[in-house]
Amino acid sequence: MTKIIVATAQPETTRRWLGVMQPALPEFELSAFQPGQAACGAKYAIVWGPPAELFQVETQLEAIFNLGAGVDAILGLPGLPDIPVYRLEDAGMAPQMAEYVIHYLSLYSRGFEEYALRQKQSVWTPKQGIDYARWPVGVMGLGQLGTHVAKAVAALGYPTAGWARSPREEEGIETFHGNDQFKQFLARTRVLVNLLPLTTHTRGIINSDLLRSLMPEAVVINIARGAHVVDDDLLAALDAGKVKAAVLDVFNQEPLPSDHPYWLHPKVKITPHVAAVTLESDAVEQISRRIRLLEEGKPASGLVRRDTGY
Amino acid sequence: MTKIIVATAQPETTRRWLGVMQPALPEFELSAFQPGQAACGAKYAIVWGPPAELFQVETQLEAIFNLGAGVDAILGLPGLPDIPVYRLEDAGMAPQMAEYVIHYLSLYSRGFEEYALRQKQSVWTPKQGIDYARWPVGVMGLGQLGTHVAKAVAALGYPTAGWARSPREEEGIETFHGNDQFKQFLARTRVLVNLLPLTTHTRGIINSDLLRSLMPEAVVINIARGAHVVDDDLLAALDAGKVKAAVLDVFNQEPLPSDHPYWLHPKVKITPHVAAVTLESDAVEQISRRIRLLEEGKPASGLVRRDTGY
Repeated sequence: MTKIIVATAQPETTRRWLGVMQPALPEFELSAFQPGQAACGAKYAIVWGPPAELFQVETQLEAIFNLGAGVDAILGLPGLPDIPVYRLEDAGMAPQMAEYVIHYLSLYSRGFEEYALRQKQSVWTPKQGIDYARWPVGVMGLGQLGTHVAKAVAALGYPTAGWARSPREEEGIETFHGNDQFKQFLARTRVLVNLLPLTTHTRGIINSDLLRSLMPEAVVINIARGAHVVDDDLLAALDAGKVKAAVLDVFNQEPLPSDHPYWLHPKVKITPHVAAVTLESDAVEQISRRIRLLEEGKPASGLVRRDTGY
Repeated sequence: MTKIIVATAQPETTRRWLGVMQPALPEFELSAFQPGQAACGAKYAIVWGPPAELFQVETQLEAIFNLGAGVDAILGLPGLPDIPVYRLEDAGMAPQMAEYVIHYLSLYSRGFEEYALRQKQSVWTPKQGIDYARWPVGVMGLGQLGTHVAKAVAALGYPTAGWARSPREEEGIETFHGNDQFKQFLARTRVLVNLLPLTTHTRGIINSDLLRSLMPEAVVINIARGAHVVDDDLLAALDAGKVKAAVLDVFNQEPLPSDHPYWLHPKVKITPHVAAVTLESDAVEQISRRIRLLEEGKPASGLVRRDTGY
């Protein structure tokens, strides 16, 4: 029986995925990777932040399936063999991301935060209707997730633009691309949503330079990776009043250390890496389908390009 | 020159609408209605909660244009002449309503309220991913607004149903109709969104009977009219734990009196009738277009049926 190994950062997470994956792949033998144990000779690995030791032990692996869309962690592991790595595509994450962005965007653009404060004072003060033209949204990264989020926001009436490395067209969204058009994209953006993959090109992209190029009273929403942000630069821009608010779901260190200045900053909203959580049913379906395709010698989608890092 | 009168509840509101309407209707003479003044002989009235006196003074009116979608206030005015009343259709309100509902729905379903509380304690506690099946949304009223909101929520992955007086089919939404199917609709609904018109049939519809028929841990979102709710019944259901939360944008008395128990109730969110604000540009476009159609003897959309009240 062909063997599959499941390896994550925590034993209980490994057990949970093993429990939902095995019934979907009854013709395979699944087991949990445990550091210090002998190899089981697995052909496939299903992983989420696995220990690097996995690759020293299991030397017969032919493909790796990542239990998420972001593959920066797995690609950075020492000793990663030169075999195909597949990532989840969407897996129910796009609508969750859209919901997250709409929630926090409207908190500011529609004044919902202000109404919550007024309620505490029992004060009735309706604001004028929103002028969407004053709230242009810009999405960095136009992959499956970024494109979906941009379209959801555009459907609400916000002038919406997207920026990606290479040119593309999307209905209802203004698009910018490459380094040449980056400043132009930032200059028309008040609410910046980051959905870039984390690569050597995008690490630290949310820095002083970027923040000073946005429209006044900007709002920064980061739902990609913590390492996209230079934290000191963002804190400085918030304190200088250049940026009105930051909504952060991801951090350079997770869990965010309890003494980090973000926690109690009045202009920062923190969520614990939940903007989109992999939905088990979608992940199980995608991975089991791909394993069967590979077994039949057919190509499977979601293959990560090592050169671009996504 | 054909005359048009603008009449609202407040002089500054009247002036504002006069200021944006006149440039769009240069071939007409617009003026502000002021109680106590002589008639100007207006053929059309553009109104929003006008004084009833308007109809005693201006006796040559041939049509009334309401600066909103809800016409319960104008239809209830004593002395309303038997002439066509037109209401705004959507006028940018549908996307605003959808945004409002997504914001407050996700506050509970995605745990965003809880994360805000945890942030104050500098505590990182991610919840499991949302199970949309546990958050079925039910929209009462399937007019333009209700249908739009239901579809926006369904697009996020929530099982969504709508209830209306008469049968209809909408893609992606389960539909119920009439008194016979009302209980069935309520029994599968956890998050109830009210977008019904206010009529003799719907006044007080959100009462003990309805609230006890919803799923446990229900959330009630009222963005239609305050008079749809029996306040004592809702407060009792909240206090009994039958209803988890109420999000209220409209009230039996507006502004909501500062000593009303809703203000400081921990399970109630209050916004001051802003779920959807008439967007000036849309209202101007709709009303000026309709006045010109009527002048040409052509029919215009948005005509209110007196028998149904919407």
